[in-house]
Amino acid sequence: MIKNLPKQVTLFEVGPRDGFQFEDHVIPTDLKIDIIQGLVDAGLKHIQVASFVRPDRVPQMADAEQVVKRLPPAADVVFSGLVLNAEGVTRARTAGLTHVEVSISASGSHSLKNAGMSRQQAERQAGEMIRLAQSLDLTVRAGIQCAFGCVYEGRIPEQRIVRIVRGFVSRGVNELALSDTTGMADPVSVWQLLQLVLPACEGIPVVLHFHDTRGLGLANVLAALQSGVTRFDTALAGMGGCPFVPGAAGNIATEDTAHLLQCMGIHTGVDIARVASCSLKLEAFLAKRFPGKMYRLLP
Amino acid sequence: MIKNLPKQVTLFEVGPRDGFQFEDHVIPTDLKIDIIQGLVDAGLKHIQVASFVRPDRVPQMADAEQVVKRLPPAADVVFSGLVLNAEGVTRARTAGLTHVEVSISASGSHSLKNAGMSRQQAERQAGEMIRLAQSLDLTVRAGIQCAFGCVYEGRIPEQRIVRIVRGFVSRGVNELALSDTTGMADPVSVWQLLQLVLPACEGIPVVLHFHDTRGLGLANVLAALQSGVTRFDTALAGMGGCPFVPGAAGNIATEDTAHLLQCMGIHTGVDIARVASCSLKLEAFLAKRFPGKMYRLLP
Repeated sequence: MIKNLPKQVTLFEVGPRDGFQFEDHVIPTDLKIDIIQGLVDAGLKHIQVASFVRPDRVPQMADAEQVVKRLPPAADVVFSGLVLNAEGVTRARTAGLTHVEVSISASGSHSLKNAGMSRQQAERQAGEMIRLAQSLDLTVRAGIQCAFGCVYEGRIPEQRIVRIVRGFVSRGVNELALSDTTGMADPVSVWQLLQLVLPACEGIPVVLHFHDTRGLGLANVLAALQSGVTRFDTALAGMGGCPFVPGAAGNIATEDTAHLLQCMGIHTGVDIARVASCSLKLEAFLAKRFPGKMYRLLP
Repeated sequence: MIKNLPKQVTLFEVGPRDGFQFEDHVIPTDLKIDIIQGLVDAGLKHIQVASFVRPDRVPQMADAEQVVKRLPPAADVVFSGLVLNAEGVTRARTAGLTHVEVSISASGSHSLKNAGMSRQQAERQAGEMIRLAQSLDLTVRAGIQCAFGCVYEGRIPEQRIVRIVRGFVSRGVNELALSDTTGMADPVSVWQLLQLVLPACEGIPVVLHFHDTRGLGLANVLAALQSGVTRFDTALAGMGGCPFVPGAAGNIATEDTAHLLQCMGIHTGVDIARVASCSLKLEAFLAKRFPGKMYRLLP
């Protein structure tokens, strides 16, 4: 039964980091700032704007400091940065951000391939980064990649996710995130995992990060809403992708998710047409078609 | 809460009619037969194979009789044809089909633009077609287009849908269908309409026909499952489109829908990889990329 849906949902825009980082072309800083301004104007209150990684390895994010420096004035918007190590935390703080995102993988194989660390090493390092961030007066999101499965290991034991969540909670993080890194979640697994995880969060807000790799993204959002979650990461036009599934769709699209919610009478505060005009600018610059649907249907 | 899901769902493949008819290129009869054979081999038990319309207006379906004549032998598969008038009913019967699909629009504006008839005229004509089909020993699906809304009229009063359904039930049709012709359904509207419609169906099976125009297709399937529906029209690779929304996605994809159901432990009997190999053949022939996701991800 489709009942007891929330009245309000918050969308966390990850396009300027998760989406831009996935493109072969480096998006110029001017265009990044223009898009971020457009997203602010569209009513988004949480925007992930950069990752503080090695510029030689990730040229798409080499201008992280410049982007933060030129962020539009918007006192009610939380701009965040992804950090992979202590240096990233310091860089984010020095650049002027107040919120950072730390994450580890629930899959040992994925952790080794993606981060070059065992799960245990990654968890220890994340703990140190959280402590450093807190000492620098930064608020922290702690995320779990592959929370709904891994292309190498399949389904991850739910109790492992609960244990990692408890660890993050005990470290006093401000926000938790469960990521479906490779698009393996389905409505039943979402519902089942949330039944176990939500009670362990002790009131700390939980954000779900779904990919639409296999087309189940918005069905998973519906299942999550029915489980009591009211926060979702989305990327304009469904930008992003999956390094482990070539050619796959990316994040769930901001416009499509906001449209789903709006149809169901759930308030997001997001102006879909304004987000879409950002998407169309990027589509023109990159000369490609993104997987999102709504951004191309608006007049 | 995601509970009480069905154990089994039936997919009705509409690609060879709904999908093929939407393409600019006419698919050669040989390729049509090859694809239909592939869909039978993939385990689909209901396949819409042709529409009996004027060949000068719809050249894509000009070979309807040839297609039916060359259908693979498959005693446990119901092959169906779409019919728009009495002549179509007779043609379908003469060609050798045993099941025809009649449909009318719940929107007066859509009916006038699409069928050149008022709602009342269309309903009267459908009644005559049903009677003719029954007199020819054909089983009948009666469908309602724009059941979840219309681009011209917006939301359609739910009581109108219930009234049309009751009319079809009183005429003894064998199957009912509710179509989201322009992709305007959302999970809440699906659930609300089904709460009213299902009791009026008096046990006659109801098929839902969703389009993924705005990306909500599989979220709507989830809502329908939770409402007790176990039958869905799908098209391989998400073929089809929306004449009223240029460039829009088509039907929900057979592969993606079967994947969603399989993930949730619901049996469909559909071999996703075999459907996908049909989609890849069509993709190669038409030199285009369809909106479905799963067909491109399989090895």
